[in-house]
Amino acid sequence: MTNQLAVGVDLGGTTVKTALIDSGGTVIAQSKLPTLAEVNPPAVIGQIKRAIRDVLPHAAGRTVAGIGIGAPGLIQNPGGIVKSPPNLNGWDEVPLADEIRREFGLRVEVDNDANVAAVAEAKFGAGRTHRDFLFIIWGTGVGGGIILNGEIYRGTTGGAGEVGHISIDHNGLLCNCGTRGCVEAYVGQKYLSKRTAEKVRSSPSSKILELAGGDPERITPLFISQAAEAGDDLAKEVLVEAGTLLGVMIGGVMSTLDFRITVIGGGVSAVGDFVYDAILRSVRNNVQKPLRDGIRIVRAELGNDAGVFGAAGMVL
Amino acid sequence: MTNQLAVGVDLGGTTVKTALIDSGGTVIAQSKLPTLAEVNPPAVIGQIKRAIRDVLPHAAGRTVAGIGIGAPGLIQNPGGIVKSPPNLNGWDEVPLADEIRREFGLRVEVDNDANVAAVAEAKFGAGRTHRDFLFIIWGTGVGGGIILNGEIYRGTTGGAGEVGHISIDHNGLLCNCGTRGCVEAYVGQKYLSKRTAEKVRSSPSSKILELAGGDPERITPLFISQAAEAGDDLAKEVLVEAGTLLGVMIGGVMSTLDFRITVIGGGVSAVGDFVYDAILRSVRNNVQKPLRDGIRIVRAELGNDAGVFGAAGMVL
Repeated sequence: MTNQLAVGVDLGGTTVKTALIDSGGTVIAQSKLPTLAEVNPPAVIGQIKRAIRDVLPHAAGRTVAGIGIGAPGLIQNPGGIVKSPPNLNGWDEVPLADEIRREFGLRVEVDNDANVAAVAEAKFGAGRTHRDFLFIIWGTGVGGGIILNGEIYRGTTGGAGEVGHISIDHNGLLCNCGTRGCVEAYVGQKYLSKRTAEKVRSSPSSKILELAGGDPERITPLFISQAAEAGDDLAKEVLVEAGTLLGVMIGGVMSTLDFRITVIGGGVSAVGDFVYDAILRSVRNNVQKPLRDGIRIVRAELGNDAGVFGAAGMVL
Repeated sequence: MTNQLAVGVDLGGTTVKTALIDSGGTVIAQSKLPTLAEVNPPAVIGQIKRAIRDVLPHAAGRTVAGIGIGAPGLIQNPGGIVKSPPNLNGWDEVPLADEIRREFGLRVEVDNDANVAAVAEAKFGAGRTHRDFLFIIWGTGVGGGIILNGEIYRGTTGGAGEVGHISIDHNGLLCNCGTRGCVEAYVGQKYLSKRTAEKVRSSPSSKILELAGGDPERITPLFISQAAEAGDDLAKEVLVEAGTLLGVMIGGVMSTLDFRITVIGGGVSAVGDFVYDAILRSVRNNVQKPLRDGIRIVRAELGNDAGVFGAAGMVL
């Protein structure tokens, strides 16, 4: 494969980041501008174009394969239409791919954050030696992306990989999506913090509470993780339980797809290795014996850069 | 596509069935011989070859694309190695594809019952107008096959589609596979009959018990289904609950793959339409809103013939 160039765009609620990246993963140029989400869609699209124009000249005459964009909300593909993103004011249905294609005359691909981060890991990160893997974003919610034959798998209507809303208990907690027992309702950052806050009330000596400044409302997975590192038993118990529950869902996906590898990214994925051990044990317990050998749960390698890398990766 | 011919072999514990089938689904010739499973593997392989020889001459000089075989137990692919099938005496690891290829000099494909039945529905049955669907065998256990782009999807080690062992309750019933809350442990024929027998003890006037000759041990899904048709409330309740639980699992798979269609076959799939309605309601409740429209749950169309049709379909 020749060394191609592509522009990756990470459209966030606060900033638009772009990078000109080659297929070896080297960043040639980058830009970062305010999104202007509070203004209106034309203003945001203007900022995206500006940030692309900032990096394009650095191609210095070499061919640019295209522009990839990672966006929040639901993306309708093919078409690259961004639907009702939660953090962008006044966006209903914006045909973002068309807008950008018209401006630059290049191939444009748009996908959601989780799929883009999955592509980043597939092309440049923890998944680069694997043709097939499940990618999980473990953060505020639980999202996912499926890499099949080295490419993102989108399904019939572009909605594949919504693994955070797989039920692990048909009688369980009500998720805000309306389904009972979604794994997100147990291990997503908000729910995890809330459930830990409840537990801390009966274990007020926990290190977790100390790190949160004595206020259960201020508990975050970071504090739980730090408390666990410091030897706090409640913190370890909470995180092992979360890993075990996440593993139930991952086991179900492994039973469906017979994948060997799961890559975990997102804010909560920085937890200690003992949580990854708990996830692995649980996944193995939740698949049939012949599928157990060789299953691996690994950390994502690209943190904040996953957005621009994965976006560029979609067109490389 | 020209009208090709292929031999389909359905290897069961009691009989070996073969059929010479064209790509339009017309049966040119068929044969049925005892498996001789109680003797030894060479005897069984001898019967398979004999049953193939019974139908091959009917090709009458037209090209035969190959031989497909559906076998019980775990199949290692590529290679077509049949591992420890439960109903075949003395089989440890038999390289069945090689044996048959050597004898006839034709392309040979071997796969397990569930995958073969999925291929049958994809090529000749309820899935023939769909590129992607989930196939479920709802019978003694719960098995599955994934049709992706019109072909069976096997996964990394050939084990994909084991959806009967997806957990729908991480604290739930212990399945005989060792996992908690497998959907099979709730709706598989044996478990369903057993749980119904328990419920009937507190509703001795149920029509189910009458159909089972007064013996709770003799309750089968057929009797439950017949009782439901006759208006028995307990029977309806039991089957709606089973459909709802099956739908939790199917919803999880739909969230992962974003498929629109699930085809259900197997012994229990003959239940009334009200059970399919319950499955659909549950699937819709278990996927995100944008995925709900257009989801369909349909009956398999090929009953006992799925084995030979699907086997032939693997090489057509």
